[in-house]
Amino acid sequence: MSEKLTRAYENLKEQLKDSNIDIENVTKALMSLEIETPSWGYGRGGTRFGTFRDGNEPTELFAKLEEAAKVHKLTGIAPSVAIHIPWDKVDDYSKLQKKADELGIRIGAINPNLFQDQEYKYGSITNTDPKIRKMAVDHMLECIEIGKVFKSKVLSLWLSDGTNYPGQGDFRDRKKWVEETLSEVYSAMPEYMRLLIEYKFFEPAFYHTDIFSFGIALDLSKKLGKQAQVLVDLGHHPRGTNIQHIVAYLLSEGKLGGFHLNDAKYADDDLTAGSIDPYQLFLIFVELTDPRSDTSELAYMIDQSHNEKNPTEAMIQTLESLQHAYAKSLLVDRDALKESQKINDVLASEEILLKAFRTDVTPIIQMARHRKGLPISLLKVLRGE
Amino acid sequence: MSEKLTRAYENLKEQLKDSNIDIENVTKALMSLEIETPSWGYGRGGTRFGTFRDGNEPTELFAKLEEAAKVHKLTGIAPSVAIHIPWDKVDDYSKLQKKADELGIRIGAINPNLFQDQEYKYGSITNTDPKIRKMAVDHMLECIEIGKVFKSKVLSLWLSDGTNYPGQGDFRDRKKWVEETLSEVYSAMPEYMRLLIEYKFFEPAFYHTDIFSFGIALDLSKKLGKQAQVLVDLGHHPRGTNIQHIVAYLLSEGKLGGFHLNDAKYADDDLTAGSIDPYQLFLIFVELTDPRSDTSELAYMIDQSHNEKNPTEAMIQTLESLQHAYAKSLLVDRDALKESQKINDVLASEEILLKAFRTDVTPIIQMARHRKGLPISLLKVLRGE
Amino acid sequence: MSEKLTRAYENLKEQLKDSNIDIENVTKALMSLEIETPSWGYGRGGTRFGTFRDGNEPTELFAKLEEAAKVHKLTGIAPSVAIHIPWDKVDDYSKLQKKADELGIRIGAINPNLFQDQEYKYGSITNTDPKIRKMAVDHMLECIEIGKVFKSKVLSLWLSDGTNYPGQGDFRDRKKWVEETLSEVYSAMPEYMRLLIEYKFFEPAFYHTDIFSFGIALDLSKKLGKQAQVLVDLGHHPRGTNIQHIVAYLLSEGKLGGFHLNDAKYADDDLTAGSIDPYQLFLIFVELTDPRSDTSELAYMIDQSHNEKNPTEAMIQTLESLQHAYAKSLLVDRDALKESQKINDVLASEEILLKAFRTDVTPIIQMARHRKGLPISLLKVLRGE
Amino acid sequence: MSEKLTRAYENLKEQLKDSNIDIENVTKALMSLEIETPSWGYGRGGTRFGTFRDGNEPTELFAKLEEAAKVHKLTGIAPSVAIHIPWDKVDDYSKLQKKADELGIRIGAINPNLFQDQEYKYGSITNTDPKIRKMAVDHMLECIEIGKVFKSKVLSLWLSDGTNYPGQGDFRDRKKWVEETLSEVYSAMPEYMRLLIEYKFFEPAFYHTDIFSFGIALDLSKKLGKQAQVLVDLGHHPRGTNIQHIVAYLLSEGKLGGFHLNDAKYADDDLTAGSIDPYQLFLIFVELTDPRSDTSELAYMIDQSHNEKNPTEAMIQTLESLQHAYAKSLLVDRDALKESQKINDVLASEEILLKAFRTDVTPIIQMARHRKGLPISLLKVLRGE
Repeated sequence: MSEKLTRAYENLKEQLKDSNIDIENVTKALMSLEIETPSWGYGRGGTRFGTFRDGNEPTELFAKLEEAAKVHKLTGIAPSVAIHIPWDKVDDYSKLQKKADELGIRIGAINPNLFQDQEYKYGSITNTDPKIRKMAVDHMLECIEIGKVFKSKVLSLWLSDGTNYPGQGDFRDRKKWVEETLSEVYSAMPEYMRLLIEYKFFEPAFYHTDIFSFGIALDLSKKLGKQAQVLVDLGHHPRGTNIQHIVAYLLSEGKLGGFHLNDAKYADDDLTAGSIDPYQLFLIFVELTDPRSDTSELAYMIDQSHNEKNPTEAMIQTLESLQHAYAKSLLVDRDALKESQKINDVLASEEILLKAFRTDVTPIIQMARHRKGLPISLLKVLRGE
Repeated sequence: MSEKLTRAYENLKEQLKDSNIDIENVTKALMSLEIETPSWGYGRGGTRFGTFRDGNEPTELFAKLEEAAKVHKLTGIAPSVAIHIPWDKVDDYSKLQKKADELGIRIGAINPNLFQDQEYKYGSITNTDPKIRKMAVDHMLECIEIGKVFKSKVLSLWLSDGTNYPGQGDFRDRKKWVEETLSEVYSAMPEYMRLLIEYKFFEPAFYHTDIFSFGIALDLSKKLGKQAQVLVDLGHHPRGTNIQHIVAYLLSEGKLGGFHLNDAKYADDDLTAGSIDPYQLFLIFVELTDPRSDTSELAYMIDQSHNEKNPTEAMIQTLESLQHAYAKSLLVDRDALKESQKINDVLASEEILLKAFRTDVTPIIQMARHRKGLPISLLKVLRGE
Repeated sequence: MSEKLTRAYENLKEQLKDSNIDIENVTKALMSLEIETPSWGYGRGGTRFGTFRDGNEPTELFAKLEEAAKVHKLTGIAPSVAIHIPWDKVDDYSKLQKKADELGIRIGAINPNLFQDQEYKYGSITNTDPKIRKMAVDHMLECIEIGKVFKSKVLSLWLSDGTNYPGQGDFRDRKKWVEETLSEVYSAMPEYMRLLIEYKFFEPAFYHTDIFSFGIALDLSKKLGKQAQVLVDLGHHPRGTNIQHIVAYLLSEGKLGGFHLNDAKYADDDLTAGSIDPYQLFLIFVELTDPRSDTSELAYMIDQSHNEKNPTEAMIQTLESLQHAYAKSLLVDRDALKESQKINDVLASEEILLKAFRTDVTPIIQMARHRKGLPISLLKVLRGE
Repeated sequence: MSEKLTRAYENLKEQLKDSNIDIENVTKALMSLEIETPSWGYGRGGTRFGTFRDGNEPTELFAKLEEAAKVHKLTGIAPSVAIHIPWDKVDDYSKLQKKADELGIRIGAINPNLFQDQEYKYGSITNTDPKIRKMAVDHMLECIEIGKVFKSKVLSLWLSDGTNYPGQGDFRDRKKWVEETLSEVYSAMPEYMRLLIEYKFFEPAFYHTDIFSFGIALDLSKKLGKQAQVLVDLGHHPRGTNIQHIVAYLLSEGKLGGFHLNDAKYADDDLTAGSIDPYQLFLIFVELTDPRSDTSELAYMIDQSHNEKNPTEAMIQTLESLQHAYAKSLLVDRDALKESQKINDVLASEEILLKAFRTDVTPIIQMARHRKGLPISLLKVLRGE
C-alpha cells in the first residue's frame, strides 16, 4: 500500500472520529456492497436518431460476459449480470451457466422483453387480442424457467405498454388485463423468486403508459402478493420528483425490490449514475442505509445507455460513483440528525447531511480496494495507462 | 324561446342523429349536472407577490353565500357551497344553515385547514410534536361535527405538509403519523360521510410533500377503509401527467371521491377550468361519463384562485366551460369507439373523440337553460348588459 | 353538393354574421392555405426501443412522393414536399424534378442531415476536429446546390449537436464554431433562399444542446443576416412554454421563418398536430392570422413520426386538424378583442377566443373542398369506404 | 490557528500539488470573493398559503442592515446590501448612507418594484394605460436617482408583467411598450450604472410572462446598449435547463451582468443556494472561473426566501455553500480538461470535474477565514454555541 493512501486514510479516520464515525465500519460495508451490471449495458446504446458504433463493443452475449467479468475483476463489486430475453437467449442455458462459472460471475435478474416483437405494436399484456396477451404471458413463463436454471431471485419486468393518442386504448380494460396476466405469471414463480415491477412516466408511449407511476406499481404489487415488489429506475420520473421519498415510502411498506441505477437531466436519458445529480444519489443512499431499512434482498442493478462513452469504462465509472454515494451516506450522524429533526432545526439537520456529502471518501474507497487486493486506479489499469 | 335557438337545436339534433346520439338524453343529463362552488372562491385570490383587491369582492361568509346563491340562480347547477374551517367558522351553525336555506343553497364539503396556524410551521399531522398532531386531529374532529350539522357527505382534506430541505424531516416517521392520525379521524366520521384525500406534487413545501401523488392517496385510502377516497385536483400534477388515466384508474378501484376543478399551465396555477387545455377537460369527462363509471356520489367541486377576474363572473364562466366539456363527452359514440379500439384502429378511435369535441354544443346548453327557466346568456345578465 | 352541406354552411353563415364575420372570407382563406409535407413522414417512425413496420409503408423516395401526391390530390393543400439529404439523395435531381412535375407536386425545403454519419458522433459543426466541421459545411453547401435545382426557398437546419456529460464540450468554442460555419453556409445561399434555424430543448443530446432555445436561434439569425430566420418545431420546448408568445415575438422581429408542425405531451413526441392540445394550436394560429402578421413567406411544414398510425392517413388527418385550427382563428372578432384588452376585461377577451374556438368549422372546410372539386370525407375516400 | 486546521490544510496542499493546483491561489481567490445580500432576505418569507413569523425577524430596514452587518462581520465576504424600493424607501438617503458606513457595509443594487402597487394589477410597463406605464417609468427613474446617492453600479430589474389567460393581452403591443419604456430608463442612467434585466419562466403570471427566457432578456439588452445586461436568477428556468450553458453563452456575449443566487427543485422555490443541486452550482462556477471569463463587474447577489430557516443563519449558510462551489471550481485542471475535450475523451473530461467536485475544500475555506481574522465555525459563533 502506498504511503500516501495510508496517510490519507489515517487523516480521514481522525476527522471522522470527531463525528463519532468509525471509518472501519464504512470500509467494511464498502467491501461487501454488490451491484449487478446488465448484459445489454456492455453493448452500444443509441437514440432514435442513430447509434454510433466503433466496432469495439461486444455484440454477442459471451463477449459481453467477458467484459462483465473484467469489470468484476477490477472492481470486486459486480459479481452478477442481468440478462435480457430474447436478446440473450441461448440454446443451452447450462452452457451459459458454465461460461459464467468460468468467468467467476453469475447470472442475476432475468428481464423479459415485451416491447420489441412486431406482435407488440399495439401492446403486449394489454393487447386487445387475447392471443398476443397469451404470447406475452408465455414469454414471461419461459423467463421464469430460464431463471430457475440460474436460481435467479429476480424476474425484472418493465412493461412499456401504453398508447400514443386519445381514444386509442381503453384504460380500464387494459388495467384488468395487466392484473390478470401478471397474476398468472406471479403464480408460476418459485418461492425464492421475486417479481419486480418497474414503472415509467412515459416513452416509448407518448399519450399514456399503463404503469406510469410508483403508485400503480405499488398497488399492483400489493394485489399480487408478497413476492411482488417495485423496481425504481432513477430516470423514470417526472422532473422534480423526490425519489428519496419514494424509496423511503416503499421501504416502509416492504415493497422496494430493487433499482435500475442511472442518471437523467431531461427524461429517461440513461446517463451514468451520479453524473447529473450526485447529491440526489447520495440522498437516496441515505434512505437505504438508514438503520430501519431492510435491504438484504434489494437488487442494485445498473441500467444505462452508453451512447458515447466506452461501455466497459462507463460501467466502472458508475460503480465508482455508486461507491462514493454509498460511503458518504454511511458518514451521516444519525443520532444527531434525529435530534435536530425532533426540534425542527432545519438548518442543522441539513448541515449534518452536507457534512457527510462534502467529505472526500476517496481514501476509504481506495482502502477497500487495497484490502480486496484490487488495483487502486481502476480506469488507469483498464486503459493500460 | 327564440326562434334562433329552436333552429340551432333542431339542426344539431339532426346532425347528432347521424352519430346515433339522441340530443334529448344529452340535454336532460346537462339539466341534472351539479357542481359545488367553494366559499373561498368568491373572495379575491393572489400570489406570494401580492393580491389585487378592488373592494367589490365579498370578504365575509354571508356575503360570499349571497354570491353563490346568485351563481346558482343564474346557472341552476351550483346548489351547494363548500366551506373552509376556520375561514368560514361561525358561532352558530344553525344560523348558517338558515341563511343557506333562505338563499336556496346548501352547505357541501367541509374543508379543514392544516396549513395556516402558526403552530403548523413545521407540519400539522406530521409534526414531531405530538401536541400539534393532536391539535390537528382535534381540528378535523371539529370539522366532522360541523359537517354533521349540515349532513355534509364530504370531509375534504388537503394535507399541505412537507419539507423544504434535505434532512429536515424523517419520511418514515411522518408517514406513520399521517396514517395514525387519519385513522383516528376516519373512525369519527358518520356512515354517510366520506374522507376525500387530496394529493399535490409540491407547494407550499418545496423539497418533499407527504402526499405528493395519487398513488400515495390511493394507498392511504385503502388502508383507511371504504369511506376514504381520493380527491383529484386538476392542477396538482407534474406537467404532462395523463389525468384522465388516473381518473379511470381510481374509478375502476371505486376510489374516486371527487374533483377540485381548475386549470393550470405551469404549476398549481388555479386558473379557471378549461381555460388552458379544454381538450384535456373533455377527455376527463369522457372517462367520467363512460357507462361503467359509477359517479353517483362523486363530488364535482370548483377550486380556483381568482386573481384578476371578478370571482362571481369567473365562477359562472367556469360552470359554462364544464357544461361544454360534459355535454361533448356525451356525444362520443361509445360503441363505435369500442369497435375501433378492438381492431387497433388508432386513427379512427381518435377521430371519434375529435368529432364529439369539435361539435358546438352551445344549443344544448342553452336549451337546458331555457327548459329550467334560466337566462340564456348568463354573463350578459350578470353584467346587466 | 349535398343538401346537408348547403344547409349546414348557410346556418353557420347566419351564425357568424352575428359576430361580423363573413364566412366567405374564411372559406376563401382556407382554399389557399398551403402546408408542406416531409418525405420522411411517409415512412414508418419509431423509438429507440424499436420500429413497427407493416410492409405497406414506402421506403424509397419515389414511392414516398407518390403518397405525397395522393395526399395533395385528396386535400388540395399539400403541393410541396420537403426532402432530407442524404436520405433522399438521388443521382440525377432533374429526374426527381420530372417525377414531381408528373405527380403535380414540387420539391420544397431542403433539410441537411448533421446527426447520422458516424463522423458526427461527437458533433458536426461543433466538432473539435476541423475536418469534420468542414465535412458538415460541405454537406450544407451541397444542399444549397440541390436547392438551387428546385429553386427551393428554404434551407431548413436542425442542429442536433450537444453533449451528454458535464465537461464533455467547451460551450464557448462550440458557440464560436456554430457562428463561423453557419456564416460560411449563409454566404453561399442565393438571394431567394432562406436559412431556417431550428432549436430544440434536448435530445439526442442529454446534457446540453448548442441551440436549445428560440433565444439562441434568434440571436444567431440576427448575427447572420436577413436571410436567416427561426424555425419553430412545436415539440421542441420545455413543458409549459407559451409557444404562441414566441410566435408573436418572432413575427414582430421579422424572424419567424417557418414551422415544424406536430404535437407533444411529454417531450419531442412527434405526434400528429392538434392531437394533444388543439387549443394551443388554435392560439398559435390566432397569432399567425393577426392582421399585423406578414406570413407571406412563412413555411408551414409538417414534421411528425408515425409510429402506429398509417403515415398517409396520419398526414391527411393532420392537414384536416390544421384546417380546423386555421379556420377557427379567422373567426376571432379582432376589433372586439382589441377593445376588451384595452379596458383589461380579462374574461371578455378570453370569451372572444373561446367563442371562435368552440365554433364547429366543419361546414367551411367541407365547402372549401367542394369548391375545389375535392372529396368531402377524405379518410373515407382514402380507405375506399 | 488550530493544529488540526494546519494539518488539514497541509494535507490538502500536498494532494492538490499532484493536480498542479497551487492551494495558495485558491485561498487568495476565496479571500477576495464578494457576494451581495439583499435587505429583503433578512425578513421572513412565505408562500401564498401563509407566512410563519417568529417575531425575531427584523421588519424594518435599519434592523435588517444590522443583520447584514453581522453577516459581513462573520463571513467577511458580504460587504454590500441590495435594497428594494419602495420596501426600503426612506425619507433621507444620506442617513441611510451614514448608517451603512457606521455598520461597515455599503448599499449595492437598487431594485425597483413593479409588481406590488394596486395600479399594476394588469401590468406595469406593459399596461394598456399610458398613465400607468409612465408611473412605472417614473418609479425606475426615481430608483436611478436613489442609486446615484450610493454610486450604485446596478439597477436590477425584475419585470413580473405577464398575463393569466389567453387573449388577455396583446403580445406585440406589450413587447413594444417594454422596449419603449426601458429605453427611456436606460437613457437616464449615469455611465457607471448598468441595467440588469432579469427573466423568469412564470409566476406571478400563469399564462405568459413578457420576459420569460434568457433569450428575450439578451435580445432586449442588445437593443438597449452596452450598459444593459442580463441577470440570471437560478430558480427562473424550466426544469432541466442547463444554466451553466446559458452562463457561458452570456459571458461570451459580454452580457452576463449578475446573478440572483438560490436553489430550486420544482419552480421558483427560492431555497438556499446549493441546497438541492450543489453539483449544478459548482458547474456554474466552473464557467465563471474559466480563464476567458471577465467577471470583474459581475454582481453576485443572493435572492432567497427564508420561510422556515432563520434568515440570518440561512444567509451565512448560503455564503458558505457558495464558497464551497467557488473553491472547487478553482481546482479544475483546465489544461487537462482542454486536452481531453479535444480528443473527445468524454469520460476523462467528466472525471476531471468530478475530481475537483469531490475534493473537500473545507480546509481552504477555514484557512481563508483564519487569515482574515474571522471565526472558523460561523454558525456556532452566531448561535453562541
